[in-house]
Amino acid sequence: VSEFDLIERIARRAGSAPSVLLGIGDDAAVLQPTPGKALVATTDSLVLDRHFTVAWSPSDIGHLALAVNLSDLAAMAATPRWVLLSLTLPESDPVWLDGFLDGFLALAERFDTVLVGGNISSGPLNIGVQLLGEVDPDRMVDRNGARPGDLLAVTGSLGDPAAALLLGEAAKPTLRARLHRPEPRLAAGQALAAHVHAMIDISDGLLADLAHLLKDRLGAELDLASLPASPALTEALDSDLERWRLQAGGGNDYELLLALPPEVFDQARAKCATLGLELTAIGRVSDRPELVCRDSAGRNIELPARGWDHFESS
Amino acid sequence: VSEFDLIERIARRAGSAPSVLLGIGDDAAVLQPTPGKALVATTDSLVLDRHFTVAWSPSDIGHLALAVNLSDLAAMAATPRWVLLSLTLPESDPVWLDGFLDGFLALAERFDTVLVGGNISSGPLNIGVQLLGEVDPDRMVDRNGARPGDLLAVTGSLGDPAAALLLGEAAKPTLRARLHRPEPRLAAGQALAAHVHAMIDISDGLLADLAHLLKDRLGAELDLASLPASPALTEALDSDLERWRLQAGGGNDYELLLALPPEVFDQARAKCATLGLELTAIGRVSDRPELVCRDSAGRNIELPARGWDHFESS
Repeated sequence: VSEFDLIERIARRAGSAPSVLLGIGDDAAVLQPTPGKALVATTDSLVLDRHFTVAWSPSDIGHLALAVNLSDLAAMAATPRWVLLSLTLPESDPVWLDGFLDGFLALAERFDTVLVGGNISSGPLNIGVQLLGEVDPDRMVDRNGARPGDLLAVTGSLGDPAAALLLGEAAKPTLRARLHRPEPRLAAGQALAAHVHAMIDISDGLLADLAHLLKDRLGAELDLASLPASPALTEALDSDLERWRLQAGGGNDYELLLALPPEVFDQARAKCATLGLELTAIGRVSDRPELVCRDSAGRNIELPARGWDHFESS
Repeated sequence: VSEFDLIERIARRAGSAPSVLLGIGDDAAVLQPTPGKALVATTDSLVLDRHFTVAWSPSDIGHLALAVNLSDLAAMAATPRWVLLSLTLPESDPVWLDGFLDGFLALAERFDTVLVGGNISSGPLNIGVQLLGEVDPDRMVDRNGARPGDLLAVTGSLGDPAAALLLGEAAKPTLRARLHRPEPRLAAGQALAAHVHAMIDISDGLLADLAHLLKDRLGAELDLASLPASPALTEALDSDLERWRLQAGGGNDYELLLALPPEVFDQARAKCATLGLELTAIGRVSDRPELVCRDSAGRNIELPARGWDHFESS
């Protein structure tokens, strides 16, 4: 099967939309932006043995590749529109490609996102996704607006993907599903935009992404006992400390972390509830640039804020 | 040097523009499209030992990575605006990165293109570029408009990069420069848009890209003696046949191939001349779906139309 056969295979399944003036099969895609909207662009690549292993199903890899990019748009309160796909494949394997597209396109369809272009090369497996979305320029949310006194809150629960990595084969399917098939919080991001000062998605780990939010100018106090944990996570780990480690440093959660004024928290939580999603207050922004984690007795607990650096060994 | 140090290093050099509402350092870039324009999006990845070798300078790799994407926009008659960069690097090497950015950003600056985001992973070297541009929707040119009787024409000259690959170390610097530092034909693409029925950039090789233009419904007669060759190419190869092989099948030229009505050719050529660029008629589109190559005596010459397939060995 040649490169062009693979592209044909992708093009047949890619779908279309009125906003796509020219899709797969030309030198570039031509797209019709919505008047008055700002364009939002992000790109993330998945690398074998970094982001997934050979044990993963192609469909899960396809889901994850798009999900991590959708999660970036969720954190900007943006609406995804179009996506491009750069595949570097060790061999021309149509069965693998079909499985990959199953996961990728099912997620794209759920979020009205059209695959409009890309390219295929041969080489060590590398999956690059370029996602384009739109946002009302008055509604966009960045990482920089947190203020002292803001509440810190997270959507959903934290730590399941890290537990799945730690436990490997022993992890329950519900934990593994959180690692393989993260759910991007797009509706929540858009619903929360009007209430928050700053928002980021938790990909590197809670403490690492919190550091991106606080920069060098602010600090925070976190209440570890309030970190939201799924029943599966609580069941899997006996020790509070071990659970906190995974929740604070594990990464791959793809939940939203936000800073918002305390007086709007109840309203924000109610909006999330209408989406079937918990919103949990986990701490507070302070003007002292240090990060303090406390247990329920108020004791200071040291947790590694390492997060995920691609050039440090884990 | 950590992943975030490398990102800092890139951010410091990336520049800015009024259209960039939010650049490097957030979950996604936020960009201000020009009202009334369509968005043009392309992505191309470079893989070690496929598109370049370890002998290449980082600066040449940076130039090539952006040039191949700019060339795609040239073929759409689009104007480049913003670019994202997905780097998968085997190690954290700031010296390599600085050299890469030298070539990449110098070319970006020449074409008023701003680096607005991207990501870094660790793994086998893979360079993904996502380029965004704009085009007047009435002015865009695709691959599909060629008609029987159209002249086929190419910008510049063909075969230098293929000769550089063939000759290796023995190739003259002018040939090697065409391989390492192709010049995207953006001004020509925009100047030609009003005159042409179809346009494509020659990346896979003249015959392969011509096949993309003709699809299954049209054919062409090519006059091999008219294929434009640089003085360095003519000097490097004694045999007409060998030169034609490289010019027809070699690829990596990044010239524009266009189909246009014969009566506008002189005007189109004059426009290219004002840009210091040759435009050469090389054949004609026919309604018989076959590709015929003739020498100056009118003899039919069989040339491989193989082009570049990433899953066939060269």
